[in-house]
Amino acid sequence: MPPQTRARQRLLIKGGKVVNDDLSVVADVYVEDGVVQQVGPNLNPEPSTGLVVLDVTNKLVIPGGIDTHTHMEFPFMGSRSKDDFYTGTKAAIAGGTTMIIDFAIPQKGCSLTEAFDTWKSWADPKVCCDYSLHVAVTWWSNKVKQEMETLVQNKGVNSFKMFMAYKDIYMVNDGELYEAFSCCKELGAVAQVHAENGELIAQGAKKMLAMGITGPEGHELCRPEEVEAEATQRAITIANAVNCPLYVVHVMSKSSAKVISNARREGKVVYGEPIAASLGTDGTNYWNKDWAHAAAYVMGPPLRPDPSTPGFLMNLLANGDLSVTGTDNCTFDICQKALGKDDFTKIPNGVNGVEDRMSVIWEKGVHSGKMDENRFVAVTSTNAAKIFNLYPKKGRIAVGSDADIVIWDPKATRTISAKTHHQANNFNIFEGMVCHGVPVVTVSRGKVVYEGGVFNVTAGEGKYVSRPPFPPYVYKRVRQREQVCQPVPVKRAPYTGTVSGSSVTRK
Amino acid sequence: MPPQTRARQRLLIKGGKVVNDDLSVVADVYVEDGVVQQVGPNLNPEPSTGLVVLDVTNKLVIPGGIDTHTHMEFPFMGSRSKDDFYTGTKAAIAGGTTMIIDFAIPQKGCSLTEAFDTWKSWADPKVCCDYSLHVAVTWWSNKVKQEMETLVQNKGVNSFKMFMAYKDIYMVNDGELYEAFSCCKELGAVAQVHAENGELIAQGAKKMLAMGITGPEGHELCRPEEVEAEATQRAITIANAVNCPLYVVHVMSKSSAKVISNARREGKVVYGEPIAASLGTDGTNYWNKDWAHAAAYVMGPPLRPDPSTPGFLMNLLANGDLSVTGTDNCTFDICQKALGKDDFTKIPNGVNGVEDRMSVIWEKGVHSGKMDENRFVAVTSTNAAKIFNLYPKKGRIAVGSDADIVIWDPKATRTISAKTHHQANNFNIFEGMVCHGVPVVTVSRGKVVYEGGVFNVTAGEGKYVSRPPFPPYVYKRVRQREQVCQPVPVKRAPYTGTVSGSSVTRK
Amino acid sequence: MPPQTRARQRLLIKGGKVVNDDLSVVADVYVEDGVVQQVGPNLNPEPSTGLVVLDVTNKLVIPGGIDTHTHMEFPFMGSRSKDDFYTGTKAAIAGGTTMIIDFAIPQKGCSLTEAFDTWKSWADPKVCCDYSLHVAVTWWSNKVKQEMETLVQNKGVNSFKMFMAYKDIYMVNDGELYEAFSCCKELGAVAQVHAENGELIAQGAKKMLAMGITGPEGHELCRPEEVEAEATQRAITIANAVNCPLYVVHVMSKSSAKVISNARREGKVVYGEPIAASLGTDGTNYWNKDWAHAAAYVMGPPLRPDPSTPGFLMNLLANGDLSVTGTDNCTFDICQKALGKDDFTKIPNGVNGVEDRMSVIWEKGVHSGKMDENRFVAVTSTNAAKIFNLYPKKGRIAVGSDADIVIWDPKATRTISAKTHHQANNFNIFEGMVCHGVPVVTVSRGKVVYEGGVFNVTAGEGKYVSRPPFPPYVYKRVRQREQVCQPVPVKRAPYTGTVSGSSVTRK
Amino acid sequence: MPPQTRARQRLLIKGGKVVNDDLSVVADVYVEDGVVQQVGPNLNPEPSTGLVVLDVTNKLVIPGGIDTHTHMEFPFMGSRSKDDFYTGTKAAIAGGTTMIIDFAIPQKGCSLTEAFDTWKSWADPKVCCDYSLHVAVTWWSNKVKQEMETLVQNKGVNSFKMFMAYKDIYMVNDGELYEAFSCCKELGAVAQVHAENGELIAQGAKKMLAMGITGPEGHELCRPEEVEAEATQRAITIANAVNCPLYVVHVMSKSSAKVISNARREGKVVYGEPIAASLGTDGTNYWNKDWAHAAAYVMGPPLRPDPSTPGFLMNLLANGDLSVTGTDNCTFDICQKALGKDDFTKIPNGVNGVEDRMSVIWEKGVHSGKMDENRFVAVTSTNAAKIFNLYPKKGRIAVGSDADIVIWDPKATRTISAKTHHQANNFNIFEGMVCHGVPVVTVSRGKVVYEGGVFNVTAGEGKYVSRPPFPPYVYKRVRQREQVCQPVPVKRAPYTGTVSGSSVTRK
Repeated sequence: MPPQTRARQRLLIKGGKVVNDDLSVVADVYVEDGVVQQVGPNLNPEPSTGLVVLDVTNKLVIPGGIDTHTHMEFPFMGSRSKDDFYTGTKAAIAGGTTMIIDFAIPQKGCSLTEAFDTWKSWADPKVCCDYSLHVAVTWWSNKVKQEMETLVQNKGVNSFKMFMAYKDIYMVNDGELYEAFSCCKELGAVAQVHAENGELIAQGAKKMLAMGITGPEGHELCRPEEVEAEATQRAITIANAVNCPLYVVHVMSKSSAKVISNARREGKVVYGEPIAASLGTDGTNYWNKDWAHAAAYVMGPPLRPDPSTPGFLMNLLANGDLSVTGTDNCTFDICQKALGKDDFTKIPNGVNGVEDRMSVIWEKGVHSGKMDENRFVAVTSTNAAKIFNLYPKKGRIAVGSDADIVIWDPKATRTISAKTHHQANNFNIFEGMVCHGVPVVTVSRGKVVYEGGVFNVTAGEGKYVSRPPFPPYVYKRVRQREQVCQPVPVKRAPYTGTVSGSSVTRK
Repeated sequence: MPPQTRARQRLLIKGGKVVNDDLSVVADVYVEDGVVQQVGPNLNPEPSTGLVVLDVTNKLVIPGGIDTHTHMEFPFMGSRSKDDFYTGTKAAIAGGTTMIIDFAIPQKGCSLTEAFDTWKSWADPKVCCDYSLHVAVTWWSNKVKQEMETLVQNKGVNSFKMFMAYKDIYMVNDGELYEAFSCCKELGAVAQVHAENGELIAQGAKKMLAMGITGPEGHELCRPEEVEAEATQRAITIANAVNCPLYVVHVMSKSSAKVISNARREGKVVYGEPIAASLGTDGTNYWNKDWAHAAAYVMGPPLRPDPSTPGFLMNLLANGDLSVTGTDNCTFDICQKALGKDDFTKIPNGVNGVEDRMSVIWEKGVHSGKMDENRFVAVTSTNAAKIFNLYPKKGRIAVGSDADIVIWDPKATRTISAKTHHQANNFNIFEGMVCHGVPVVTVSRGKVVYEGGVFNVTAGEGKYVSRPPFPPYVYKRVRQREQVCQPVPVKRAPYTGTVSGSSVTRK
Repeated sequence: MPPQTRARQRLLIKGGKVVNDDLSVVADVYVEDGVVQQVGPNLNPEPSTGLVVLDVTNKLVIPGGIDTHTHMEFPFMGSRSKDDFYTGTKAAIAGGTTMIIDFAIPQKGCSLTEAFDTWKSWADPKVCCDYSLHVAVTWWSNKVKQEMETLVQNKGVNSFKMFMAYKDIYMVNDGELYEAFSCCKELGAVAQVHAENGELIAQGAKKMLAMGITGPEGHELCRPEEVEAEATQRAITIANAVNCPLYVVHVMSKSSAKVISNARREGKVVYGEPIAASLGTDGTNYWNKDWAHAAAYVMGPPLRPDPSTPGFLMNLLANGDLSVTGTDNCTFDICQKALGKDDFTKIPNGVNGVEDRMSVIWEKGVHSGKMDENRFVAVTSTNAAKIFNLYPKKGRIAVGSDADIVIWDPKATRTISAKTHHQANNFNIFEGMVCHGVPVVTVSRGKVVYEGGVFNVTAGEGKYVSRPPFPPYVYKRVRQREQVCQPVPVKRAPYTGTVSGSSVTRK
Repeated sequence: MPPQTRARQRLLIKGGKVVNDDLSVVADVYVEDGVVQQVGPNLNPEPSTGLVVLDVTNKLVIPGGIDTHTHMEFPFMGSRSKDDFYTGTKAAIAGGTTMIIDFAIPQKGCSLTEAFDTWKSWADPKVCCDYSLHVAVTWWSNKVKQEMETLVQNKGVNSFKMFMAYKDIYMVNDGELYEAFSCCKELGAVAQVHAENGELIAQGAKKMLAMGITGPEGHELCRPEEVEAEATQRAITIANAVNCPLYVVHVMSKSSAKVISNARREGKVVYGEPIAASLGTDGTNYWNKDWAHAAAYVMGPPLRPDPSTPGFLMNLLANGDLSVTGTDNCTFDICQKALGKDDFTKIPNGVNGVEDRMSVIWEKGVHSGKMDENRFVAVTSTNAAKIFNLYPKKGRIAVGSDADIVIWDPKATRTISAKTHHQANNFNIFEGMVCHGVPVVTVSRGKVVYEGGVFNVTAGEGKYVSRPPFPPYVYKRVRQREQVCQPVPVKRAPYTGTVSGSSVTRK
């Protein structure tokens, strides 16, 4: 295939089965200038010259994955995550993901817009596929509130993340959560939370170290799953008090997933995001005898030692109780992890996933029979697009959509390994996993950027994607409730009797 | 508007908001020969002569409702339901429903195909909109099995209902359920159950009568909701044992809905169908002092006296735990109901709903803020089309779909009343309910059949719709599980020790 | 009956059915010097002179009630609760309760021991029956910790209450809870919590007032039951992190009770205390058109508008998911309540109950068939005695037990009314409730203090009861877990590779 | 210690800690003629001659265990269980159990009283400790009903077991269950069920064999835990319909235990009996490579492969959701098991437990910190005595109780092994388990029958224990509900309108 230029790109994807979240149908897809122009049988666009044709008979043609949760080149815990926006997005592409949403995270007391600009300045020259940015709210003030408004109205941000963990660093308290959620609701943004009780983690970590538990197993022991479930419950309660839609990032435990499911049954507008790691592996690894192996799995919230966790989360993802998947991709090399070799609290938190997410979910979700290919598209792409107001530009293969498309071979298999992956770090938490379902071609905005193991990318080629506020998928119900579900005062005759307080003094 | 002929019908629906289950977008819809040809902004089909144009600015353009559960002119309990396929489908159309699925129900020992033919012979000359037929399996034999195969392969039937209630009449036992479910799975059909423990109902009814409770309240007292929940649990367990997808008709209680939700969380392929009645009213009516009022609500399973039931079911319908809605429309006049004036067990079971379903769900679901307009379309039309393998011909407004379309005015209101409804019976269980959301125009296969209160229908104009087996929405997971989830024997050395039974004789 | 002196009191209770929590048996009870000496058939103590004999044939002889939760003469919200330790304990006695446990509550920053001494100085001269004191921990410091130790070791206190509500007044944060729970565990005390999210209440109250909702209904609307459930979940999580037994006072909602039940299923050592109010009435009263009526029910946490709440709580109390009952008796007159006539946040929180608890629970629990007389004794007396380490001195009728005994007529009925009750305030939240089960005689430490409506009490006659730490009923499991359930470090070779942090600077 | 005769036995147990279900207290116990005469400090019965004295300082003195579920010398599946009433009760005694309740099980169509007499004739000459007999209802007729009455009124039977499994052999259908439960309720008996869906088992077994799965793993695969949970739910629903208390024997799965727990929360009178096997081991053994090992665990319902099952059940047992423990002791030698070497359906169902139950529960329950010693006594003895109306004669150490007493050394350990156990079969499903908590002396009706590994028993020395109907612990609530919870007819004017059935003929 000859090198392409973005201008006048014309692409015909022939003979595949186009898989959207509602339907699979054998059809050709014709793309021009990065946008899908036609979907149907036997397309024959003229002129044929300059037309790139991919014959994908017996393959699936799916919307490119959207990874809702990455941390590229993130300065964190005395280190910086290994994958930058270049290697990270290349790896994404190799794995069938064509858009990532990263996080701009200001220090406490610092400007949100500056953080946004900083992250954008890191990303713009490097990204190989489209991306967007969530912004974290790590403290509260009127200025923060104004900046949130600016970000929503001028910068295309429609989601803000609040940390309930990382005490003294990022953690906000319940009152601040209440304010931030209220502000999100007003602005039409999606409130996101890292749900763990930071106070308990801080105390638990001290306790573990005092007991002589300094290895990676201490990381999980000091923050068992009920610490996550508690915070999830609390966040949902607070968000519901202000009728704000809530998005729980990295759902890691059965307990937390149950809390979310139960809230949804009660009509609360809440979305749960399990990640590749929680769907594909588990926390027994923290007890591995090899320190480097164990440390490689350290992330927050931790993976859970209950080996039935991944299957449980996948069931809920299949069923609709959980909505969408990310990775929390935040890679550190073993030598970076080794910062915590004598104290698990100093191990930089983070694992890989951006490249492997699609395959892991296909293997554990689709190949296993837990979900079908359409639900796969929903949870890897469509739902993310809907929640973050990118749909149907992203998340669907339809006339008018961005041509972010992946050719997926459901029959092929590949074995995940750090030796062959495209991420920058030297460990892969899914090492050795044989995955059915392989992305064979990746198309980003109409350009073939990856085919048969070969990249055709240029740093900075991806675009920042603005996300408008008030995603209808999320906010229609919320706004309707604002109108019809308000309490009204009881009409009563005024009380006219005596009033008597006692001038109580406490001795 | 001039009279139309079906041939060469051309229709342009201009300026509305087209609402599918995934998205709402302002667009025109152009229809020819009963099929949607174009969806997009500013359509201007030529020639303009002979083109019917509906200006629907500020209105919603939604896929016509599919009522998954009706019993028109059903010979039952010594009577026959009042609405026949003519009045029933007219009423449907007036309410925004453009397709019904009725049930052909053979007596025990009788032929399924004959029952199918009988019902079809009743329906074909009368229906005003499209319809299809589920078939009931009320007994078991090899012949039944063969007839199921015939119905699936030659008659377009892909769903069979089994009764766990109506002892000695329709009820099948667990062994028969097992056989029927196994057969459904083989044939690619959806197994449906009326889930109530018929044995307990029979005993309970005797007990109530013995206690002197002969009025309609006895109907609920003898079959409280745990009788429904028990059977639901049992049906799910049996279906799961043969990896057969299950569809629970008329979910009437919180208990039963919880059973379904929990099963879905465990990955079971099960769908729950609440109905207009269970979503819009409740069983406190059985305690009404007016016998005729109370009797009018008698249906099986009964409505529940817990007044939080409708809201609970609607929450689960909004959330995805319940999938689809029908009505169990089976109307009897008060004088028919009076067959049971001295004995509640003789009151013909059945209520109205086919006309009111869409409005009731809009009012209690959308207007209340529990779901948005897209989920409304999903649960009134799209999901039914997917489950019964009619999608995207039905259940979606898209190029190539049948032009079963309703113009919905979300701002208008109407008050439900037997005085104004179009059903044949003289009582309406939703009497007096003010509903936001009114169907103002109904289009069936491209023909305007109802507009502003005026019908333009001809008996027999609707078509029987064949439904092919193995609906992908239902069966993809099922088939994959067949392939990957089979147990394998443990490899062992044979046992070579002594074997000793005792020739035990009992005394 | 002649006046008695405490010295040389001899009492024979003849012919009744002695009901303990495990068994009912017809037997006589012989008491000397305030202590049960014999229990058995046909007792005939000599000499018969000076022997008070109560013939109680066909009556039940039960352990006197223990009200685990009262606030007599409590200075609170600009007023002071109406019932002091004299009227309050008299009312208790009239209702069949022979011991109360009140709360000493220091202001933030103030001494716990001083608070204890203050409350004791109020109570000692007035109490007509035995009592004890929980102490509240409303702030945290080393001094608080030392005072807790003093109270446990020198003052007979084995329970401390922490408030998660009443922001800026009594509320402690998660870190303080953690410390307080840790301290309780070390000292062998039972940690108690008022479980509501105080931050949400503060915000909710502001919101309600801003919406113009100033009446008592605002009290519930600003702190709906999920605010209680959230805090309950959080308290359990924190307590479990330090292996501290937890006692949740005043369980008011189904949600909160479910949280407790689920925690118990997971093996957590947690006890739930519903109260007379939550078992006997509900929050629909806040919507009463009469302000004074509505205000009379204001307490924190509020009663719940869901009318199925009392029955649900009673089921769990019967079943063992909830353990023990109090009243949160904290009475205010209507004119005191009127402090909040224009602003519900100023209505003094509190309701009656100390007199009515036993009858309400008998009526709703025993008469209804939800529990038997033995479980009644367990939840009104025995379990409290076990949890607070008073058993079997209190909570059982057995040789060696204190003769705190009530003669209960299960066939008699009485109607609760403010007109006839013995409490000091002029409203009764159970007004008009007809109760089967009437206390006809109350015996406190062997003295008949109430009989047939006539008191025979002297202020100050009751005694302060010391409660030793480490109640075996609570702490045996806790201590065993300390020994066997500690995590141990994984044995590993030390990491010997490179360590590399990046000297990250954030621009 | 010299040999004792039963006559004039006098025994003093000195210096131990007497553990009842409500309290532990250091006290001596003095026994005469098989009955406890005194419990208290420093007992010094005269004369000292002829007085057997056991010094048990630092040991626990607990009520002898009651095994609620055994099958000694049971003719079953072409064989006969290995332990007869002699070896079985000897083994019981060695393990600290002083009473068993076995089952008399008639064939379908056969007399219940004859079965009872047969079993009694087997037991009476052999038993070394007290015993009683449940009777199975394996079919239904008026004769069965009459025999149930006879057994209750003349034979001391107050419990009947119905099988929902073992199709064509013991299984009864829902209608028969309804009748049997109704009859139990009338007679004051406890209804017991073996809860598994026999139809599904029969079908599942066929399916497994057809798939080539003939080994012991097929036993579990054909009846996974939902088959047990379904039947449990059904049994509870049916029992509740007739207000009959229900006792679920051998609770083997988390699913089933949850069903029971949930029913109890709703106020249903239902008791769950986990067994030593389900509390101490799991179903992963069915996948053992050694056929004989795997086969040894075959029992119905099967042990569950989910390894978290035993801990989960123990938590519920500790918490009160499960009530009581048995063993389903029904031992077969490997050569008997080998009857099913080529077909798992022919492996005689049954495992050991009667000797090991107490130790297993202590180890997994008490030593682990899940329950304390008092709850241990409750679940191994007291609750059984209460439910089967033997309390306080059995199940408590108190004046007047039978002197069935065990001296328990909580510090000692023993290792379970077939090499050292006293049961007749050559395999132990707990092989190798190290148990803290060892029974060092067993006293049956005042006689030391086992001490330091030495037996002092005589066949036939145990007595059949009659159990009167209407156990108050079970039936008080049931009877009260009968009186107060009956529905009443709504008062209405008669319907006076037209009545019209149609003379419907079906074609």
